[in-house]
Amino acid sequence: MNDNRIVEQIKSFFEPSSVAVVGASKHVDKAGHVIFKNFVENKRLGLFKGDLYPINPREESILGYKCFPSIKSLPVNEIELVVIVVPAAFVPQVMQDAKEKCSKAAIIISSGFSEVGNRELENEVRRIAFEGNIRVLGPNCLGVYDPVSGVDTLFLPITKTLISGEEVIATPRPKEGKIAIVTQSGAFGVAALDYLAGRQLGISKFVSFGNRIDLDESDLLNYFLHDKRTEVILMYIESVRSGNKFIETAKNVTRIKPVIALKTGKTKAGAKAALSHTASIAGLDEVYNAAFFQAGIIRAQNMNEFFNMGKALSMQPPARGKNICIITDAGGPGIMVADECELKGLKIESISEDGLRKLEVLRESGQIPKFASLSNPIDLTGSVTSDMIAKVTEIVYHDKKVDGIVLLGLHHVPGLQEDYVDRIALITSSREKPIIACDIGETEMALYVRSKFEKFGIPAYASPEDAACAMYALCYYGEYLNNLNRCK
Amino acid sequence: MNDNRIVEQIKSFFEPSSVAVVGASKHVDKAGHVIFKNFVENKRLGLFKGDLYPINPREESILGYKCFPSIKSLPVNEIELVVIVVPAAFVPQVMQDAKEKCSKAAIIISSGFSEVGNRELENEVRRIAFEGNIRVLGPNCLGVYDPVSGVDTLFLPITKTLISGEEVIATPRPKEGKIAIVTQSGAFGVAALDYLAGRQLGISKFVSFGNRIDLDESDLLNYFLHDKRTEVILMYIESVRSGNKFIETAKNVTRIKPVIALKTGKTKAGAKAALSHTASIAGLDEVYNAAFFQAGIIRAQNMNEFFNMGKALSMQPPARGKNICIITDAGGPGIMVADECELKGLKIESISEDGLRKLEVLRESGQIPKFASLSNPIDLTGSVTSDMIAKVTEIVYHDKKVDGIVLLGLHHVPGLQEDYVDRIALITSSREKPIIACDIGETEMALYVRSKFEKFGIPAYASPEDAACAMYALCYYGEYLNNLNRCK
Repeated sequence: MNDNRIVEQIKSFFEPSSVAVVGASKHVDKAGHVIFKNFVENKRLGLFKGDLYPINPREESILGYKCFPSIKSLPVNEIELVVIVVPAAFVPQVMQDAKEKCSKAAIIISSGFSEVGNRELENEVRRIAFEGNIRVLGPNCLGVYDPVSGVDTLFLPITKTLISGEEVIATPRPKEGKIAIVTQSGAFGVAALDYLAGRQLGISKFVSFGNRIDLDESDLLNYFLHDKRTEVILMYIESVRSGNKFIETAKNVTRIKPVIALKTGKTKAGAKAALSHTASIAGLDEVYNAAFFQAGIIRAQNMNEFFNMGKALSMQPPARGKNICIITDAGGPGIMVADECELKGLKIESISEDGLRKLEVLRESGQIPKFASLSNPIDLTGSVTSDMIAKVTEIVYHDKKVDGIVLLGLHHVPGLQEDYVDRIALITSSREKPIIACDIGETEMALYVRSKFEKFGIPAYASPEDAACAMYALCYYGEYLNNLNRCK
Repeated sequence: MNDNRIVEQIKSFFEPSSVAVVGASKHVDKAGHVIFKNFVENKRLGLFKGDLYPINPREESILGYKCFPSIKSLPVNEIELVVIVVPAAFVPQVMQDAKEKCSKAAIIISSGFSEVGNRELENEVRRIAFEGNIRVLGPNCLGVYDPVSGVDTLFLPITKTLISGEEVIATPRPKEGKIAIVTQSGAFGVAALDYLAGRQLGISKFVSFGNRIDLDESDLLNYFLHDKRTEVILMYIESVRSGNKFIETAKNVTRIKPVIALKTGKTKAGAKAALSHTASIAGLDEVYNAAFFQAGIIRAQNMNEFFNMGKALSMQPPARGKNICIITDAGGPGIMVADECELKGLKIESISEDGLRKLEVLRESGQIPKFASLSNPIDLTGSVTSDMIAKVTEIVYHDKKVDGIVLLGLHHVPGLQEDYVDRIALITSSREKPIIACDIGETEMALYVRSKFEKFGIPAYASPEDAACAMYALCYYGEYLNNLNRCK
């Protein structure tokens, strides 16, 4: 199958047995230095296991590695992956050389192609790649970051030195995780890495594909369908290269793994900006909505939704239905979740008669506050304790009418201790339905409670509406899967 | 004028010459302990300057203060402010005593009134207050926090002790600032304090008014109109007590200071939740939209918007028109701002012919990148330097066609150093039009750059859409003021 062949080919980008960095440099300010050094470092750490060659006609050696003037001059017959960081005009020659060394993959970092009108040069590169059967990422891209194999072609160093002389983290690489990032915009891509690393979220792999003269968003989606480390795919696009290919591929992917898309260029102003950015014709936004819907792709409306949804889908199962129960110790924020859920088409219905009776027993026996409200949202009021929240969550979690829980445990109230998190994690460990947590605040205890939830695989949010949006993504994807099964 | 009399009366809540805490306690777990201790601490720090009396018939002294069995037994003729933390049933007697001591203000923290059906008790308290000419906040509220006068009736201690024995910040009190918080929900109120403190934002005063048997959102709005330390008012409400009074008051306020409202109970599910929370009849959401529009109140659709808008309006002037120029070093995020601006009704038009010519000169002379895009968004690409961003911002800031700037300086690119922030601050220091900054990321450099911007009074956001939303608030308020002036 052709699909499987591409998947095999794309592996050369992530697990190459040999890499040549063309344009490797000794100068710390050069992209070719940063990229080559990434490989050197990751080799030293035992992450990158392939052979490594710097290519630069003006140097004898770089960072202890003997330097070669060209790919052709390398003392081996084959180079699996070629990373190209030389000016655009030299790229065709490099590709010719790569062809001679039977290269399987090339990442062209260099810019100066169609995005600035140089279509002819781009076509020449494409032709050589096609003749040599070399798969290409780019040009005008950042390429690949893989936290496990140690391939890291990002030319932005992890740290930056401030004018004061202080060194600070500037472009962190997230740890290993379940989320794949596929991005058309390199700048947004590194921003995403910065966001995910800061929020302690891991990634499986990162790919920035830029001008996509060969591999495009559909090929990469297909690759990640087969990638075992990837459980959720987050995709930033300004346009899709081939609508039919995209929808067909995405359909195959979304029946197995959720895909979240941030598609920009929605408006006239945005589409105009996209045109001058990646020469993307953004297209009618309604068409994208329809395509995403058909393909089971969840569309994020903005950056926060993109990451919020991604986190939820990487940690919790999709919901089987749309009836969400809100459990809260704070009235106002409970209303905010109810509002946002209903606005997004979810239902806030009462739990079952049977469940209600159990809650009433708790209330009558003084195990939850006398004035607790048992309708949905279930409001345990400021008199809540860890024990109360656990007992109520246990009943609600096993209630047949409930498809998912949004739990607001605002930590400010006196009786709530952080141990309720452990108990909630235990109660919901079967993963039979999703739970989302929310605690508001940006100081110590709020940060601690949210991070504690996430260590147990329960995504936690800092605003009620973000929590509702996360639950929406789980319901949307769950409904899509339900409909698929029904159509079988 | 009656209005001015209420303003004078409300001052007794924030700057009382004497306070009695009825229900003060020695037990650390009691609300009456926390509140009394807040006053003791703030007196020790020299913040709270009034006389302080604990009231509790079972104690001789609390925290070194001689304790009195009742307000009546106090050795003074007058007590300006009475803070009441005793069970609901005792509140009428306390109010009678306060009347005898000519109290001007009472904060009734106690719950157990109309929110649980005890309307009669609530009416009795209201009657006594009316007879005694005592203004009341509450019942079922948190009362007041004033970072300058040291009045702090929040019964949630600043820190909490985890089960491990570690003490962590749980309910921080923000530093002094320009934002007033008026909230119907106490829980949301403390969550807001936690958010603002963590984000280094200050407040002028905080009021939680709960069941509002006397003072309501309109009275408090009016008070903050006259409060010199308040420049922006953030208001969380589930309902408005009197529509006409609210609109008339708000109109007077918004011609001087911006008001941002987070009104929950927007949907059927939310309205139902609000009813059981504060017995609020949420009303038709369209009616609130119309009322807010008429009164010049900016409506936030969710918690993030609420704080994002508040920050913008507390730091930057309103925009004179709707034409926003986006300056970016990152194509994708620039598109995201353009999309969100247009969706919110702002315009992303080209800058003036004259301004464009100046930018072209920069480009032709190599002072900005050859491939920079000069249409709006102005994209300086990943080759940006601090100098480029400063030169372009200077031209755009003085361009007559531009009403506001959203500046995206993603720090990941190699050539951008944090010193560009100083230069932008200098260029825009005249405050003749607003500027909003954005840098994406959650690790060191992103946090540093955003906080540096905010030290200069330029609000900085972590997502492109949040930045656009902040600019929207400045445009919305600017347009409202323009229309007012036109109608004069």
